[in-house]
Amino acid sequence: MTQKKRNEDIGNRGGGRSVLFRNGTMDFLAGWLLGYSQQGGLSPGALLHCYSLIRDGDPRSWVSVFAQAGEEAADRAEQAGAAARNREVAREWSAAQIAFRAALEMCDPRTSEAADLTGRMRHAFEAYLAASGVPLIGWDVEFRDSYFPAYVTPSVQRAEQLLVIVGGGDTYVEDLWFFGGKAAIERGWPVLLADYPGQGDTPSRGLHFGEQTIDGMRQVVDDIREQGFHGELVMLGWSGGGIFATRFAATARSTDRVSALVASTPIYDPGTFFRRTLPDVVQGGPDSVLVRAALGIARRNRVLRTSLDRYDWQFGAGGISTIADRFDELKVDLSTWRLPVLALVGLGEDSESLRQAQGVIKQAQVHHPSSELVTFDPWTGAQAHCQVGNLPLALAQVFDWLEAPVLAQERAAS
Amino acid sequence: MTQKKRNEDIGNRGGGRSVLFRNGTMDFLAGWLLGYSQQGGLSPGALLHCYSLIRDGDPRSWVSVFAQAGEEAADRAEQAGAAARNREVAREWSAAQIAFRAALEMCDPRTSEAADLTGRMRHAFEAYLAASGVPLIGWDVEFRDSYFPAYVTPSVQRAEQLLVIVGGGDTYVEDLWFFGGKAAIERGWPVLLADYPGQGDTPSRGLHFGEQTIDGMRQVVDDIREQGFHGELVMLGWSGGGIFATRFAATARSTDRVSALVASTPIYDPGTFFRRTLPDVVQGGPDSVLVRAALGIARRNRVLRTSLDRYDWQFGAGGISTIADRFDELKVDLSTWRLPVLALVGLGEDSESLRQAQGVIKQAQVHHPSSELVTFDPWTGAQAHCQVGNLPLALAQVFDWLEAPVLAQERAAS
Repeated sequence: MTQKKRNEDIGNRGGGRSVLFRNGTMDFLAGWLLGYSQQGGLSPGALLHCYSLIRDGDPRSWVSVFAQAGEEAADRAEQAGAAARNREVAREWSAAQIAFRAALEMCDPRTSEAADLTGRMRHAFEAYLAASGVPLIGWDVEFRDSYFPAYVTPSVQRAEQLLVIVGGGDTYVEDLWFFGGKAAIERGWPVLLADYPGQGDTPSRGLHFGEQTIDGMRQVVDDIREQGFHGELVMLGWSGGGIFATRFAATARSTDRVSALVASTPIYDPGTFFRRTLPDVVQGGPDSVLVRAALGIARRNRVLRTSLDRYDWQFGAGGISTIADRFDELKVDLSTWRLPVLALVGLGEDSESLRQAQGVIKQAQVHHPSSELVTFDPWTGAQAHCQVGNLPLALAQVFDWLEAPVLAQERAAS
Repeated sequence: MTQKKRNEDIGNRGGGRSVLFRNGTMDFLAGWLLGYSQQGGLSPGALLHCYSLIRDGDPRSWVSVFAQAGEEAADRAEQAGAAARNREVAREWSAAQIAFRAALEMCDPRTSEAADLTGRMRHAFEAYLAASGVPLIGWDVEFRDSYFPAYVTPSVQRAEQLLVIVGGGDTYVEDLWFFGGKAAIERGWPVLLADYPGQGDTPSRGLHFGEQTIDGMRQVVDDIREQGFHGELVMLGWSGGGIFATRFAATARSTDRVSALVASTPIYDPGTFFRRTLPDVVQGGPDSVLVRAALGIARRNRVLRTSLDRYDWQFGAGGISTIADRFDELKVDLSTWRLPVLALVGLGEDSESLRQAQGVIKQAQVHHPSSELVTFDPWTGAQAHCQVGNLPLALAQVFDWLEAPVLAQERAAS
């Protein structure tokens, strides 16, 4: 499979040679979607069919193929429901959810097409939950004359712990089902999933990444406390969620009762992180990706342009080129860190992820020696960004660590 | 993804354009392994890593990459066990099983390397079962001065029904875990899995495909009766197992108590089937694959030669070119057919599969109108041979059909 030379992606997420698409961004996304099939979503057979129809590097063909895949799956779900073939119904709604989700990724988020795909994705996810008999309550979190969507386990009031799953710049709240939502519920953990400001479709309602994202997290936690939850919060952050969850934990009020942080990857100095991993995007110099895109030089990589447009939309005024400066506000002073931490790092990622995770773990081990840094080499399948190629393995590590007696002993002693 | 033109495979199993390998056989196998990841095995991330290392069309590189993947997974399983990270142990043993299994597929089955890989695969599968707490009893079925391996649910004595899962020319008994074994046990069905003569490593002990395969099935059923099982047998056949299960059901003794047949695909006239779908292999004329291989013309497709060598080994004297004549013995007289049948047919397969399935279903519907032919188009992901790209969807259909009230009503009335 050496015939494909991978071309440009945002950063270095896949950590290997292209197998599915020459286009680096498409190749990463295609591997991510295959990874979802371990827990639901589109099957490998359906994905390979879609990939065989998509023109490499053409975002429009990606959108139209996945939109059709979504309609086909939704039709099958309806037919299975009409025939009372109940085992298929949930399965097909999950496939529809992920097909619409995939289409959305390369669609201009400012369009009515994107709004339509978002609605279909959400409908499919909720139909999946209903067909699976999974109890999860959705609500709109009111926030600064706007709102964002969240889901929580209904029995949360009686729970001692709540797993707060936080996504990044490439997630919608429905994705969080695959990043621990399903696994947690199967293991009896109540969960809280949300699209915080900047995530999902919140930019279309004036919400953007930055300190506002952390404020949104505080708002949700206040909502949950008001609903009667008195237990501890365990933070689980993915991608940008590794920034937000780390910052939230570091600046939490004592009443927030944050008890542990798990992140892939924990990032305490996000400004430096982005200056090192996305220098083209951040510096905006004459050779930067943004400038080349503006000049039309990047016309050959329409996928990259589509992705950058999406990130610009998420950041609002100034766009993604402000990411490093804006995220400097979220820098964490590690000297005051007191929580146990599990860091998950794929070795396919930029070495800066590993460096910052090591910094957090070193400090966390002062008070909690069970704090641990777990790395994933390519043979594990979890080497890519957020372990998308083998999330169940990463999640097995998460729950084995969270439920280990040593963690409870350390916390009782501290 | 139109840049790859698929080249020769055995028959037409994948039913689409190549995405993973130009080599048709490798591409089908690569999609099959990705399909397994829905139920365990190697993760999509690990498989994509392997595919990125394999030289397209080179069977030796396939074997060495997967053998390494197996060793890596077995090491991780041992490490997770030593650290009492129990959730990972089962997961990694399943990965090791499938890695060794994959390596075996392109390895000369007559070698000590193949015997070693078979042993490692079996060890990994049994370690997986133990770590998962799945109760399944393995034993060696004595048969004509030889033996073959089988597994059965321990509580089978008290069961009213037993699901007999029958593989084909490309399965080892451990594969049957993915072809309904796991799904059945999760749904409370007891299962019987075996390598019948010609399957798995049985050719190395003098057992080959043909009428002997059916005799082997009778031997296992007699063993199970002797162990105290008095219930009904539901036959579930895949690939060549669609021939064997159909033949077994058609020639069953009344004491066998066969109650239903499910097959992907049911084949009642296997001689005609192979004359139509594999004319090159069967006819052995000057343009046949076998003759070209012998002449060295097929040197460029070493994968195909490896596959044909394996099939030759399975058939014993005369090799695979005798398949049509030998399987003529297994032809079923449909006019006496009385059982309900569910036929699963991927639309990516040769149209002869659909034609024979239609023949069986038409006859079955005379006595059991609930008999049904289900087809899978490419959007379902289950369009390939044996639905390998979306087995859980096919299995959802199987259990929804087997447990439907209408089937029980028809059988009570007949």
